[in-house]
Amino acid sequence: MSEKITGIAASSGIAIAKVFVLANPEIVIERKTVSDKAGEVERLEKALATSKSELEIIRDKAKVDLGEDKAAIFDAHLLVLSDPELVGAVKSKIESDSLSAEAALDDVSSMFISMFENMDNDYMKERAADIRDVSKRVISHLLNLQFASPASITEETIVVAEDLTPSDTAQLNRKYVKGFATDIGGRTSHSAIMSRSMEIPAVVGTKTIMEKAEQGVLAIVDGLSGEVILDPTPEEVDKYKKKQADFQAQQEEWKKLVNESTKTADDHHVELAANIGNPGDIEGVLNNGGEAVGLYRTEFLYMGRDKLPTEDEQFEAYKAVLEKMEGKPVVIRTLDIGGDKELPYLDLPKEMNPFLGFRAIRLCLEQQDIFRTQLRALLRASSYGQLKVMFPMIATLNEFREAKGILLEEKEKLVSEGTSVSDNIEIGMMVEIPSTAVLADRFAKEVDFFSIGTNDLIQYTMAADRMNERVSYLYQPYNPSILRLINNVITAAHKEGKWAGMCGEMAGDETAIPLLLALGLDEFSMSATSILPARSQLAKLSKEELSKHKEAFLNLDTVDEVIDYVKTHLS
Amino acid sequence: MSEKITGIAASSGIAIAKVFVLANPEIVIERKTVSDKAGEVERLEKALATSKSELEIIRDKAKVDLGEDKAAIFDAHLLVLSDPELVGAVKSKIESDSLSAEAALDDVSSMFISMFENMDNDYMKERAADIRDVSKRVISHLLNLQFASPASITEETIVVAEDLTPSDTAQLNRKYVKGFATDIGGRTSHSAIMSRSMEIPAVVGTKTIMEKAEQGVLAIVDGLSGEVILDPTPEEVDKYKKKQADFQAQQEEWKKLVNESTKTADDHHVELAANIGNPGDIEGVLNNGGEAVGLYRTEFLYMGRDKLPTEDEQFEAYKAVLEKMEGKPVVIRTLDIGGDKELPYLDLPKEMNPFLGFRAIRLCLEQQDIFRTQLRALLRASSYGQLKVMFPMIATLNEFREAKGILLEEKEKLVSEGTSVSDNIEIGMMVEIPSTAVLADRFAKEVDFFSIGTNDLIQYTMAADRMNERVSYLYQPYNPSILRLINNVITAAHKEGKWAGMCGEMAGDETAIPLLLALGLDEFSMSATSILPARSQLAKLSKEELSKHKEAFLNLDTVDEVIDYVKTHLS
Repeated sequence: MSEKITGIAASSGIAIAKVFVLANPEIVIERKTVSDKAGEVERLEKALATSKSELEIIRDKAKVDLGEDKAAIFDAHLLVLSDPELVGAVKSKIESDSLSAEAALDDVSSMFISMFENMDNDYMKERAADIRDVSKRVISHLLNLQFASPASITEETIVVAEDLTPSDTAQLNRKYVKGFATDIGGRTSHSAIMSRSMEIPAVVGTKTIMEKAEQGVLAIVDGLSGEVILDPTPEEVDKYKKKQADFQAQQEEWKKLVNESTKTADDHHVELAANIGNPGDIEGVLNNGGEAVGLYRTEFLYMGRDKLPTEDEQFEAYKAVLEKMEGKPVVIRTLDIGGDKELPYLDLPKEMNPFLGFRAIRLCLEQQDIFRTQLRALLRASSYGQLKVMFPMIATLNEFREAKGILLEEKEKLVSEGTSVSDNIEIGMMVEIPSTAVLADRFAKEVDFFSIGTNDLIQYTMAADRMNERVSYLYQPYNPSILRLINNVITAAHKEGKWAGMCGEMAGDETAIPLLLALGLDEFSMSATSILPARSQLAKLSKEELSKHKEAFLNLDTVDEVIDYVKTHLS
Repeated sequence: MSEKITGIAASSGIAIAKVFVLANPEIVIERKTVSDKAGEVERLEKALATSKSELEIIRDKAKVDLGEDKAAIFDAHLLVLSDPELVGAVKSKIESDSLSAEAALDDVSSMFISMFENMDNDYMKERAADIRDVSKRVISHLLNLQFASPASITEETIVVAEDLTPSDTAQLNRKYVKGFATDIGGRTSHSAIMSRSMEIPAVVGTKTIMEKAEQGVLAIVDGLSGEVILDPTPEEVDKYKKKQADFQAQQEEWKKLVNESTKTADDHHVELAANIGNPGDIEGVLNNGGEAVGLYRTEFLYMGRDKLPTEDEQFEAYKAVLEKMEGKPVVIRTLDIGGDKELPYLDLPKEMNPFLGFRAIRLCLEQQDIFRTQLRALLRASSYGQLKVMFPMIATLNEFREAKGILLEEKEKLVSEGTSVSDNIEIGMMVEIPSTAVLADRFAKEVDFFSIGTNDLIQYTMAADRMNERVSYLYQPYNPSILRLINNVITAAHKEGKWAGMCGEMAGDETAIPLLLALGLDEFSMSATSILPARSQLAKLSKEELSKHKEAFLNLDTVDEVIDYVKTHLS
C-alpha cells in the first residue's frame, strides 16, 4: 500500500525506481584483552594499509566523476589514516591496556570525535565526521565485515540509507542511481550538497525511511516537495511521471536561457551573478549563464590547511577566476574568517558569541599582515579581468575608510615596484550589519557599491542565530523591517549613482525576487543553479508595475502579510 | 616621591588618607600523604565548623551594615560549606589518596572552580568565585594562617588590596575606610559594585598598586578620574582637597534636587526613573529623587535558587515595589532569562551564540507556564500601585501580539475568579532588537509605550558582543546609526500619542542626555545614583534649542563627530 514520507527537499527533480537499501551491518566491538600485543599491532597495520589503498581508488574515481574539489575530502581521509597522533595513540592503547586493535581504535577515535564535535565550529565538526568515516572503514576490515557497496548497483535504483558518507556518495554510479532518500541530514548536509552537485533528486532527513522502505519496492522521490512515496499506486506513478516530464521540460526551457541576457517583461536589465567558493566553481557559473561572480568567498583558500596561503597561491586563485570569467565582473570578498569559521593555525580565542565577535574585517584590520598579503594578491590579479573588491562585516565608516586606505597603500607600493595593477577596481562593502543599512546614505558617498549579505543582516536585525533551531522561526527574510533596510540601502546607493547588489540566499529566492525588483536591486548573486530559474522568473515580471507596490508592502506588519502580498499582487 | 597610577574609576569621590595594605599570606599547600586519615577528616570538620561560625557572624553584620540583598552572598557561602557533593568529594579524596585535608580540599575546589569558570556564563562564574572565597577561608584555618582582617582598621585609611572578596568588603568599617584601590577588577566587578553601594571612592584594576604602595604612606584615590596618587606632594594634596570640596559641594547641590521635579531650562518636563533589581533598591530610588521605576529586572527573583519562584513569592515582591513607590509609575519587565543569564534548574541547552539565542520572550512564549505564573503575579499586584508591564526581546509584531494576548487572557481569568486587577495597566515593550526600531511605526499602533534598551540595541545593531573585549570598540552609543534608530522609535511613538523611554546605560550618560533630549525622549531610566546629576544637567539644557540640531547630528558620519558635536553645540 502506498505510503508517503515527508523529509527535506535536498536536490530537485523527480525519480521513480526500485529501492536499494544501503544497510550496513551494526558494528559490535567486544572489549576483550589480548595476549599477543604485537599481533594486534600487525592486524592494525594491515587494516590501515587495506583501507589506504581502497581510499586511493575511491579518491581517483571521485576526481574523474566529481571533480578535484569534491575529491579533496578523500585526501583528508587519507591524512587521518596516516595521522601519527591518532595511529600512535591506538598502538599505545594496545600496548598499555592489552586491548584488541578494534577496541583500541574505537576508544581513541571516539575520544577524538567527541573532542572535535565539542568544538562548536563547523570546520572541526567536519573533522569529526572524517574520523568517524575512516575509523568505521578500518574497523570493518579488522572485523571482516562486508559493507554494502554502492558500487554493486547495476540497475536503476533509488538509494535509501540512514545517511550517505562521502565515501558512499563517491561510489554511486550516476548511470543507475536515480535518486536517494536518507533518514538524517538537512539541506546543507554533505549528502544534500553532493546530490545537488550530481543533479540527483534527493530527500533527506525523513527520519523513518530506513524503517519503512523494503528492498526492491517501487518508490518515488520528489526532490521538489521533499516527499518520498513507497509502493505508489499506478495513478500516483502516472501523476509523478507527468510532474517529472514537466520538470524536465522546464529544465530544458531554462537551459535555453543560458546565453540570453536578463531582462524583465518591461525590458529592464538586472545582473544575475553567482556566489562561488573556489576557482573550480566557475565552470558551473558559465554553464548556468552567470553574468558575473557576485561573491567569491576567499576563506576556502585559508581552510583545510595548516598555515596561511602565500601571496602567490592566492594570486593564482584570483587570477584563475578572473581569467575564466573573461572580463565579466568578479566581486571578491576579502577574508571573512572567525565566528563559526575558525582557522586552527590562527589560534583565535574562543568567544562566547562568535557571531558577534572578532571576525572578518575586524580581524583583518588588527592582523594587517594577513590582510595586506591578500590585498597584494588581489591587486596583482586585477589586470587579468574585471575585479571588484568587497570588505565583509563593516560596521562603521571608520572601518571602511581604514580598509580602503590599506588597499590604496598596497596598490601604490605595487605600482612603484613596477607591478601592473588595474586602474578600474571598484571598492565596495557588504551590508550585513544593521548599522550600515541604517547609515547607508553616508556610506554611499564613499563606496563604489554595496552588496547586501542577507544571511547575516537578517540574523543581526532579528537578533536570532540562524544556526540555532530554537529561534530559527525568527530568520524572516521577508519581515518588513528587513525589506525597509534593503530599501534604504538601494535608495542610498542610487542617490549617489552607485549600484546595489545582494549576495545572501534571499537573492535567488522565488518569493523575494519580485520584492527586490520592486525595490530596484541592480545585481542578484545566488547559487549558480538558481540563475536560470531566476532569469525565467524575471522575464515575466514588470519592474515598473512592481515598483508601484513598494510603499504598500513596506508598510505591512508581519512576514505572513508580506508573503500573502507577493502571492496576491506581485506574481 | 609622588607617583600616579591609573586604573578604572569604580566609585566616585576623592579620598585622601594613609594606605592600609590588605596583604594576605600566600597559601602554600604541600602535597603530603598522611597515615591518620580519620584525623584528617576530623581536622577538616573542625575547619569547616570554624569557618561556618565566622561566616554567620559576617553575614549578620552585613545584613545590618549593607542590607539584606548584599548579605545574601554569605548565605551562598554557607551553602558551599555544607554542600554534600563538595564536602563528600574532599573526604573521599582524603580516604582514597591519603591526602592531607588542605591538599584534598584544594584539589576538589580547584576542580569545581575550573568547571564553573568554564561555563561561559556569569551566574556560574560567580559560583566559582564563591567556592574560591570559601575554600581559602577553610584552608587558612587548616594551615593556621592569620589573614589580615579589615575589621582591625581603626584609623582613617585607604585600603589597598589585590582584590576585595565579598567577605573582606563586608568587614570594612565605613567610619574608617575612606577609599580603596585594587589591582584587579573592572567597573562591574564585585568590589566595584560594593564600593558604589557603600559610597566609598574606589579605583580598581590598577594592576600595580600592591607592588607600589607601602603601608602607611599617604595616598589619594580619585574615583572620578580613576587615578591613585601615592606619596603626593603638598601641592597635589591641596589640589585634591579642593577637588574633594568641589565634589562634595556638587553632591550637596544635587541633594537639594531630590524633591524637585525634572525641568529643562525652557520648562519642559521629562521623567527621571531608576533601574532596579530588587524591592530593596526602592529606598535608594526615593533617596535619589526617582520619579518612577523605569525598569524592574525581575530575573533576580529567579536566580540564585534551585527552583522557580511561586506566584505568591512573585506577587509579594511586585506588591512591595508598587507599594513603596506610592502610586508613582513602575515598569516591570517580564522574565529576561537565557543568553548569559542562565537558570540551572531550567536546564536550557548550551547555545553557540547565547546573545542571539533562545531567551526572554522567546522562552516565555514557549514555556508558557512560567510566563503565565509571572503575569498572574503581576496582575494581582497591579491594584497596589501604577503598574506598567513590559516585554523583553520582542522581534516581531506577532510576538508582541501573542504576549499581550496571554496577559489579557490571564487578566480575564483573574477577574472572573473575583481577584481585583487594575484597569489601567499599560502594556509596552523593550526596543532592543533592530527590527523593532526599524518597524517602530507599526509597533506604535499596538503598544502603550516603548522603552529603548540600548545595551542590547547597540550590540545587535553593531553586531558586536559588548562583553567581548576584542570588539568592544564597536560598542558605540553615539554612533549616528544608533541615534537614527532611537529617533525613529521616539518619532513613531509620538505620532501615535504614546511615550518613549530608555532604560539602557545610555539614558544616564552625560554626553547622551542632550542628544536624547533633542530627540524628544520622554523618560530616562538609569541607576538611582545618576538621577540627581541628570536632573541638574537637564535644568541647564533647552529642549527647543537642542531640537534644532537634530537633523545636523543625525547626518554625521562617525561616533567621534557626534561627540565633538555635543561638546561644541549641545552643552
